[in-house]
Amino acid sequence: MSRHLEDLSGPEIGEKITETSVIIQPIGAVEQHGPHLPLAVDHVIAEEAAEAVVAEFGDAHDLWLLPTLSVSKSNEHAWSAGTLWLSATTMLAVLDDIARSVSTTRAKRLVFLNGHGGNSSLLNVACREIRLAYGLKTFLVHPFVPADHGGESPEAELGMGIHGGHQETSVFMHLRPDLVHLEKAERAVPAGLDANKHVKFGGMTSFGWLSNDFFPEGHIGDPTGATAQEGKLLFEAAVRLLGEQMAEIAVFDFGR
Amino acid sequence: MSRHLEDLSGPEIGEKITETSVIIQPIGAVEQHGPHLPLAVDHVIAEEAAEAVVAEFGDAHDLWLLPTLSVSKSNEHAWSAGTLWLSATTMLAVLDDIARSVSTTRAKRLVFLNGHGGNSSLLNVACREIRLAYGLKTFLVHPFVPADHGGESPEAELGMGIHGGHQETSVFMHLRPDLVHLEKAERAVPAGLDANKHVKFGGMTSFGWLSNDFFPEGHIGDPTGATAQEGKLLFEAAVRLLGEQMAEIAVFDFGR
Amino acid sequence: MSRHLEDLSGPEIGEKITETSVIIQPIGAVEQHGPHLPLAVDHVIAEEAAEAVVAEFGDAHDLWLLPTLSVSKSNEHAWSAGTLWLSATTMLAVLDDIARSVSTTRAKRLVFLNGHGGNSSLLNVACREIRLAYGLKTFLVHPFVPADHGGESPEAELGMGIHGGHQETSVFMHLRPDLVHLEKAERAVPAGLDANKHVKFGGMTSFGWLSNDFFPEGHIGDPTGATAQEGKLLFEAAVRLLGEQMAEIAVFDFGR
Amino acid sequence: MSRHLEDLSGPEIGEKITETSVIIQPIGAVEQHGPHLPLAVDHVIAEEAAEAVVAEFGDAHDLWLLPTLSVSKSNEHAWSAGTLWLSATTMLAVLDDIARSVSTTRAKRLVFLNGHGGNSSLLNVACREIRLAYGLKTFLVHPFVPADHGGESPEAELGMGIHGGHQETSVFMHLRPDLVHLEKAERAVPAGLDANKHVKFGGMTSFGWLSNDFFPEGHIGDPTGATAQEGKLLFEAAVRLLGEQMAEIAVFDFGR
Amino acid sequence: MSRHLEDLSGPEIGEKITETSVIIQPIGAVEQHGPHLPLAVDHVIAEEAAEAVVAEFGDAHDLWLLPTLSVSKSNEHAWSAGTLWLSATTMLAVLDDIARSVSTTRAKRLVFLNGHGGNSSLLNVACREIRLAYGLKTFLVHPFVPADHGGESPEAELGMGIHGGHQETSVFMHLRPDLVHLEKAERAVPAGLDANKHVKFGGMTSFGWLSNDFFPEGHIGDPTGATAQEGKLLFEAAVRLLGEQMAEIAVFDFGR
Amino acid sequence: MSRHLEDLSGPEIGEKITETSVIIQPIGAVEQHGPHLPLAVDHVIAEEAAEAVVAEFGDAHDLWLLPTLSVSKSNEHAWSAGTLWLSATTMLAVLDDIARSVSTTRAKRLVFLNGHGGNSSLLNVACREIRLAYGLKTFLVHPFVPADHGGESPEAELGMGIHGGHQETSVFMHLRPDLVHLEKAERAVPAGLDANKHVKFGGMTSFGWLSNDFFPEGHIGDPTGATAQEGKLLFEAAVRLLGEQMAEIAVFDFGR
Repeated sequence: MSRHLEDLSGPEIGEKITETSVIIQPIGAVEQHGPHLPLAVDHVIAEEAAEAVVAEFGDAHDLWLLPTLSVSKSNEHAWSAGTLWLSATTMLAVLDDIARSVSTTRAKRLVFLNGHGGNSSLLNVACREIRLAYGLKTFLVHPFVPADHGGESPEAELGMGIHGGHQETSVFMHLRPDLVHLEKAERAVPAGLDANKHVKFGGMTSFGWLSNDFFPEGHIGDPTGATAQEGKLLFEAAVRLLGEQMAEIAVFDFGR
Repeated sequence: MSRHLEDLSGPEIGEKITETSVIIQPIGAVEQHGPHLPLAVDHVIAEEAAEAVVAEFGDAHDLWLLPTLSVSKSNEHAWSAGTLWLSATTMLAVLDDIARSVSTTRAKRLVFLNGHGGNSSLLNVACREIRLAYGLKTFLVHPFVPADHGGESPEAELGMGIHGGHQETSVFMHLRPDLVHLEKAERAVPAGLDANKHVKFGGMTSFGWLSNDFFPEGHIGDPTGATAQEGKLLFEAAVRLLGEQMAEIAVFDFGR
Repeated sequence: MSRHLEDLSGPEIGEKITETSVIIQPIGAVEQHGPHLPLAVDHVIAEEAAEAVVAEFGDAHDLWLLPTLSVSKSNEHAWSAGTLWLSATTMLAVLDDIARSVSTTRAKRLVFLNGHGGNSSLLNVACREIRLAYGLKTFLVHPFVPADHGGESPEAELGMGIHGGHQETSVFMHLRPDLVHLEKAERAVPAGLDANKHVKFGGMTSFGWLSNDFFPEGHIGDPTGATAQEGKLLFEAAVRLLGEQMAEIAVFDFGR
Repeated sequence: MSRHLEDLSGPEIGEKITETSVIIQPIGAVEQHGPHLPLAVDHVIAEEAAEAVVAEFGDAHDLWLLPTLSVSKSNEHAWSAGTLWLSATTMLAVLDDIARSVSTTRAKRLVFLNGHGGNSSLLNVACREIRLAYGLKTFLVHPFVPADHGGESPEAELGMGIHGGHQETSVFMHLRPDLVHLEKAERAVPAGLDANKHVKFGGMTSFGWLSNDFFPEGHIGDPTGATAQEGKLLFEAAVRLLGEQMAEIAVFDFGR
Repeated sequence: MSRHLEDLSGPEIGEKITETSVIIQPIGAVEQHGPHLPLAVDHVIAEEAAEAVVAEFGDAHDLWLLPTLSVSKSNEHAWSAGTLWLSATTMLAVLDDIARSVSTTRAKRLVFLNGHGGNSSLLNVACREIRLAYGLKTFLVHPFVPADHGGESPEAELGMGIHGGHQETSVFMHLRPDLVHLEKAERAVPAGLDANKHVKFGGMTSFGWLSNDFFPEGHIGDPTGATAQEGKLLFEAAVRLLGEQMAEIAVFDFGR
Repeated sequence: MSRHLEDLSGPEIGEKITETSVIIQPIGAVEQHGPHLPLAVDHVIAEEAAEAVVAEFGDAHDLWLLPTLSVSKSNEHAWSAGTLWLSATTMLAVLDDIARSVSTTRAKRLVFLNGHGGNSSLLNVACREIRLAYGLKTFLVHPFVPADHGGESPEAELGMGIHGGHQETSVFMHLRPDLVHLEKAERAVPAGLDANKHVKFGGMTSFGWLSNDFFPEGHIGDPTGATAQEGKLLFEAAVRLLGEQMAEIAVFDFGR
């Protein structure tokens, strides 16, 4: 049975989408990822992770997929021709429209499965706006938590592999090896940041940045040693972790 | 070679997207289509048609695909739970953001390949707005021109097969037979409109309508006799016709 | 009896505007029309046509006029100093405000009588938005359907007399001969478009255009042979046709 | 020679609208004015005054008329069916669009000739916004300064004849006697306000009000003794005064 | 007892803010005031006046203070680096948000106590919008009514001491003598305006202006003879007058 | 010397605000904090911390204060009468206006010093928007990092003292003991959340919440054992930590 909501007919929505259903909105991005990766990276990862988690855990937790939002808020890459991006206000409007639409079903839970770190803060904002506007329980999950939002990054990258770095490149080599040009990969770690105690990725002080604030190549991290094998392990671990999160989300009730 | 723009890296955008490139934005919809078809109909048709036209004619006319915009302005089906829709202002904002992004490349032509009749007027508006704002040459094409925008519809439907009717059902049976419940299909033709000379689909007087203004089932047309074979012929003809349009678009210069 | 809604007092609105009333919003434009016609063309035609149709058919179909919206979305002429234009979002807001106001009366039908082709798509959008937002039955009629929206244009103009061409010039010579400088009229037909099968005015492919994409004079068509006599016939025919449309509008009920 | 800007052709705009030209935007309103007057009062007065001032003083001061904005911000009468009104944000957008359009000509002066007191504050805001955005010199004039903006009102009305009162009714009897029902006129003076030193019309404290905050009839003032003769005198005096203002506006340069 | 609303706890709001409460929103500005005064002038005056009026009259009229809105619509000083300003639409949104928040309490009266003349028109607009949107009784008061809104200004300044002039400088010398550089004060009176009968500050014709339309120093008036003593008298008189206004506001009921 | 930007005159802005200046915008909130604390908590803490950090470190790092934005995005407390809140779009507009204003000075660094956890995500969004729109280097710091954004909270509160809990209450007792009603303090820890591995404050899965999703009292944490002494230590530590952050901010250059 398909767990894509759009594969249901109008009357089937009324039957199959119920109070227990968890609606998942995958969110990708189409943005430059340096010379070794295509623009599609976040789009592919979000969609593949969403498909995998629903395939493995969909029946257990009554998960349903919406079509992936492939283009999102990538304005940190506005300088790079071809990057497609929604403004902050456009994206808030899109998310509000989606949530309003979901709230016409019986489902009570909406999950943003976000593949692009640049969206995380805005999605956190949207989670609250939607909870207040439509009464939905809202959640934000990531296949890979960005290092600047508390996620991990290898020590060799000084914890700064946040965009097209070792892990992301590895995962993408696993998913779409044909689109990776590892021969063009270069180390691009803004090592100077490491001297800071607070103002750095994941530090106490957050800061506004554009990807060309660091290096003209546009990626941040060291993809040179990435491998598809490691990517496979990372991806599978991510899906397992997403499954764990879905299990909690499916019954979440604010600790009551 | 992939002709998905997102499969290029940042540097490749600069090389492969040139003044001759035609950028195609497929636009679908996720909206009720009566009891016999899934919500995905317009999404699938737009995407499949876009893929087919680029596969056949991409090299000839330097065509490039953007990721499909799967959700669009479907508020004529707002009454039907599960229909996902963007408001008119949200969708104008999304299209403006996309066009602004495309205008950072060297490409000069942007085509909306639209699978949902409810978008046509708004897309016509957007074509002009974008031409003025970003200088792009903009075009609107349809795999199937809606009957209320001058397209054809079988006589047996009194020319009113505009949503989930004979032709659309046939095409979808060809593309995704697993998702069609033809046994639930019913004739839903608002025959009373036929008495009108002007106020009717495709008439001189256009009118605002919601799909439940006609029948509670939500489709408009007579899908009962649809066949995958006819759908195959219709789809192939549509792709050929889109190819013809792309040939003209690729060299269009306002008659100068 | 005046059939201008604004000539009623507040209490009279409650008496005379009833469930059978059809409210007509004439929509003009103030925009360049080439060297031979004034900016007022669409404003005058919309207003004169609206007055005429209400004078002839007002009592029969309970028609009521709102004050003409003289300035509208003319941004295809933004390049021409003196053209007055509302942006797309401003105009949607104006139409929404008007419709909200009308919906406080007992009237159930709102007709946009549009004299400017550049508004047609936006008005189609508005018809649906208003139907959903306020429950009004909404309609769009034209004194002259633009050739790029399915209307006719003389063969001598290759069907491209869409702005300041033979017919429009003729009609305006009938209505306001003092404001026509026929001695300045020139043929301005983008004949190159005629070679296209699809991408042309009224073709299967619509396209975004600005009036200076074609000729620097700003009109599109061949006004050189226009006459007031022909204009008179065209105008009278248009009013009759509008009367026919109003007859259907007054009783329209979605074919039920 | 017509001094309606819209009666010029595109090329004529370039010739006749020059640095000395003063562009006048008349602003009316369509809103309830009690049982004795039609909704059109402010629309008619603004338009008639604008026509008169341009007829008398147009050549002297190079005055040019835009089409009257007939509907404006009348939300103090939102309770009264049939009142047509733009929201504050819509109206700011319309005024910005008009000013942007005017700023493409060589004219440097834009005058709002406002017939509706409910617009005055918003127009003052717009005057500054436009001065900053487009560099135009902007002005606000009234045929009759509303009593709550410093204008005069007969003592018999306790200075509160601000809407459909003695003077406005008299002026309208002069302009459109056929539309006045003086037999329905009643005194509607909120005499209690007179006990206030500060919080009253024209007092030091301004306050937000809706017209039904006072009396259910909707007018404020005492129209019972109005006469067309007095209206004629008032109107002629108003036009003279507008002419004086235009003379100053035409040469105004911030006291430099 | 504190009469700052924010000093109450959630439950105390329910007890102490009642139908008789008058909520006061002080509104300042941070904008250039010439070479002799700091940007803070309007912020300080609004806040000090608000504190004083509540200290003296708070118990008598159940007055409550909101935190001062320190930054407001100062775009007439946009040319002067460091001036902080909200756009007209932002400020309307802020005021709407504040009013919506106030309307969740039992209070029925909201007063804008405005220290910046450039806000007055917008606040008048907001008073009506809020009355309609939330049913609050709304009021606008000034510590010093600006000369261009009907207030007084010494004859020596030709009635034009509207920004950093004699009175404002005096008052500020009383409140914050440490921040005044009277040695840098210069006379800056656009005396040419005095020749006008209508187009001048407080005249019948209002006009859009930026502060650098007059003098490059940015103030308008003659601060050279200002004294703290006079400022003390002016301030105390202003507070008394505000107290009188609050007394009327507290019982205001539209003259019923 | 004052380090409040608003205490400078226009000409002084040009002299004293230079490329080395760090502009600090304190951001508070006025929102319910349970029965034991006033609405002012975040407003007071942000302002006091900002004043303290500038007093101690202002000269060392050329720090300048803007007036505190006292009201911000507190819609998680919209249910509680008296809470004052800006919508997400209003607040983005305010921050954009402030940043635009700051960008007219020579300063290159803008710091949001945020006292309200509910703003953190939106401020992170704003940091990027402003960096792109105006080229400013933007930073976000907190006197106390909220537990749901990676900050610490005592174990006795299960790490959930995020709103009116032990630490915040202690700090406020230090700053404004007169406004604390510790006798009304109750433990309000949603202990059920502790069973979750991911979906909890500071967990891998973030979620949308309103403060009344947990307890009707509105606070989250256990304030019962709070003391002013502990608050003093916490506050002083926070100011020291802010000073450390300012030292890095003052020379931050993206690791180059």
